Amino acid sequence: MSVITLTTDFGVGSPYIASIKGVILSINPAVTIVDITHDIPSQDIRAGAIVLDDVTSRFPGGTIHVAVIDPGVGTDRKILYAKIGQQCYVLPDNGLLSRLMRQAPPERVICLNNSEYWLPDVSQTFHGRDIMAPVAAHLSLGIDPKLLGDSIDKIDLDDLEWPDVNITSRRIEGEVIEIDSFGNLITNIKSPMLTGKPTDERVCVVCSIYETWGIFSAYANRPRGTFIALVDSANRLELAVVGDSAAERLGIEVGMPVIVAWE
Amino acid sequence: MSVITLTTDFGVGSPYIASIKGVILSINPAVTIVDITHDIPSQDIRAGAIVLDDVTSRFPGGTIHVAVIDPGVGTDRKILYAKIGQQCYVLPDNGLLSRLMRQAPPERVICLNNSEYWLPDVSQTFHGRDIMAPVAAHLSLGIDPKLLGDSIDKIDLDDLEWPDVNITSRRIEGEVIEIDSFGNLITNIKSPMLTGKPTDERVCVVCSIYETWGIFSAYANRPRGTFIALVDSANRLELAVVGDSAAERLGIEVGMPVIVAWE
Amino acid sequence: MSVITLTTDFGVGSPYIASIKGVILSINPAVTIVDITHDIPSQDIRAGAIVLDDVTSRFPGGTIHVAVIDPGVGTDRKILYAKIGQQCYVLPDNGLLSRLMRQAPPERVICLNNSEYWLPDVSQTFHGRDIMAPVAAHLSLGIDPKLLGDSIDKIDLDDLEWPDVNITSRRIEGEVIEIDSFGNLITNIKSPMLTGKPTDERVCVVCSIYETWGIFSAYANRPRGTFIALVDSANRLELAVVGDSAAERLGIEVGMPVIVAWE
Repeated sequence: MSVITLTTDFGVGSPYIASIKGVILSINPAVTIVDITHDIPSQDIRAGAIVLDDVTSRFPGGTIHVAVIDPGVGTDRKILYAKIGQQCYVLPDNGLLSRLMRQAPPERVICLNNSEYWLPDVSQTFHGRDIMAPVAAHLSLGIDPKLLGDSIDKIDLDDLEWPDVNITSRRIEGEVIEIDSFGNLITNIKSPMLTGKPTDERVCVVCSIYETWGIFSAYANRPRGTFIALVDSANRLELAVVGDSAAERLGIEVGMPVIVAWE
Repeated sequence: MSVITLTTDFGVGSPYIASIKGVILSINPAVTIVDITHDIPSQDIRAGAIVLDDVTSRFPGGTIHVAVIDPGVGTDRKILYAKIGQQCYVLPDNGLLSRLMRQAPPERVICLNNSEYWLPDVSQTFHGRDIMAPVAAHLSLGIDPKLLGDSIDKIDLDDLEWPDVNITSRRIEGEVIEIDSFGNLITNIKSPMLTGKPTDERVCVVCSIYETWGIFSAYANRPRGTFIALVDSANRLELAVVGDSAAERLGIEVGMPVIVAWE
Repeated sequence: MSVITLTTDFGVGSPYIASIKGVILSINPAVTIVDITHDIPSQDIRAGAIVLDDVTSRFPGGTIHVAVIDPGVGTDRKILYAKIGQQCYVLPDNGLLSRLMRQAPPERVICLNNSEYWLPDVSQTFHGRDIMAPVAAHLSLGIDPKLLGDSIDKIDLDDLEWPDVNITSRRIEGEVIEIDSFGNLITNIKSPMLTGKPTDERVCVVCSIYETWGIFSAYANRPRGTFIALVDSANRLELAVVGDSAAERLGIEVGMPVIVAWE
């Protein structure tokens, strides 16, 4: 049983998603298709890159992750196959891999330019259906990726800048990089950056005009309505209002700075 | 082929749902995963309990229903396995079973405290992924539930109060407990409560300032725009505006009283 | 491996969808179920007919497409099985097939009146679950459609009027029939109608007060923010604003006329 996942900016309910699934099932009727999300904001490559980085490592080794956030469709941007760790990716070369590649370099990258594995008629506006879907389906049948096109060097891949985290002995400066569906604020500060530091009332976390003392491990450690900092289920520093949406309640957006400071 | 269903308050499109699916498929790649809904209002245990009661009996016997509406994650609330009728449930002990248990008592309840079947690293904020998902996957492979933890008595489960229906010879008093996606008003009055009573123009159904005479079996029995009472597809008394949203049109909300009276 | 697809107006997240899936899996646990969309506007048969026409041909031959947009549930409207090309359909007789039938006549149409293949208790409000789901599941197991009811003539099927495209030697007049999730304007003008005509700056496309010159094959052919005409991934003339929503930006709605004119 092989697995293909889909991550797109089509919007839940878009019939374009079903077209992709139809093409895949026409080639490999036995594959399991899982939707990661179709709610990536339109053409937001950064949001797609974050989701791929957060979620795909949870899947069985050999899963093929197709990501169609593709504002450059119809240009000469490449379409890639890449293997990173145990996971495989089929996606446009536009930075969607740029966060995953900070964790581990791709083992192998191929430019999917062998049209033998594409649909016979390729539109200029929907390569997700006409190129990525059939290629992913062939991969799920066990085809050798080498047959799909030419190897390319990972140094040639499109990259994106990601905000750095500044770390000094008494201070970490990062930012909000994502807001989840509960309105929790996800930062780019990871739990290893906090190792060996106090997490009790000696640490202060500041975002916008709000501050909170202590870093917790569960929402339930503090009463409803409290603004808290915690290490979340993906080992990231997260800011939340217990039982409520921190984003709405505090008016905080992606990109706002987050400072962790020790006395 | 075994089936696992998911009911959460994560919101459609949340990548957290995909994390759960990835964990399940990593343990049992052959299982069929079905989304019941991810649109339960945030932390609304009562809404989750109603959906589980309405829908889960439709699934093949032995289906494992995972419900992650879990405001107490990170506290000492238990996580349960329960078997009710032919269906199996994996969910936090917070009242999610309280409507199902009014239909039939659970045959067996187990506290899922054997960490051998959890993920190796358990976060304090996402037990749906780290405990419920792997346990459900092992169950779908046929493991004996006894291995998953200690049996507990159903009397010790967290329960919720549900509004009673008052029944006298000429009058039934219930309330709106749910509004479906069409804006139809679902009540807690069940069709057996109506057995042997006239359903023609001798019965009057009142909700808020609106009344209607007769109880029908199909929307199509009355013209578009009519306010009607009918017995719905789950044998519940339902109030509807034919071809329109009764909730919006009449401004009716969950909790409003519904009275059925005979002359 | 057989495939059943679902197209409904229930809204993403509606538990009614899960009821249908539960019924199907209870009869055929090995079938693959794919959601086409549940975001058809409530009772909008025309929108359902367009989606079925756009998407279903992408699925493997023999796929069973169930469409539950059914304002007439509980009346004497028929429920149909139809085979068109390689695809099979199970849906109410209300015009949902009317666009597909313009491409190719149905090979065989059956009125699904043999209650042996329905659920034992059929509600008057949810034939999607009680009739269409079990019949589709039996079809996916390979049952001969003849057993499901009486053959009927395609001439007796409910039909809908669709706007004609007027074609003269120097002018094509059509209209916007759909707006996709990106806000692109899909027209009823198909690319074969443009064959042999210039697509460079000698052709003018007009919609509402907006005009554009040339018909392109990719969004990326023109700068961000440009209003363009192109032939889309389903061979339809489409109007778009590059990198933006044409519907929102220009205030254009379904039904507005679109004119293609050559000098």
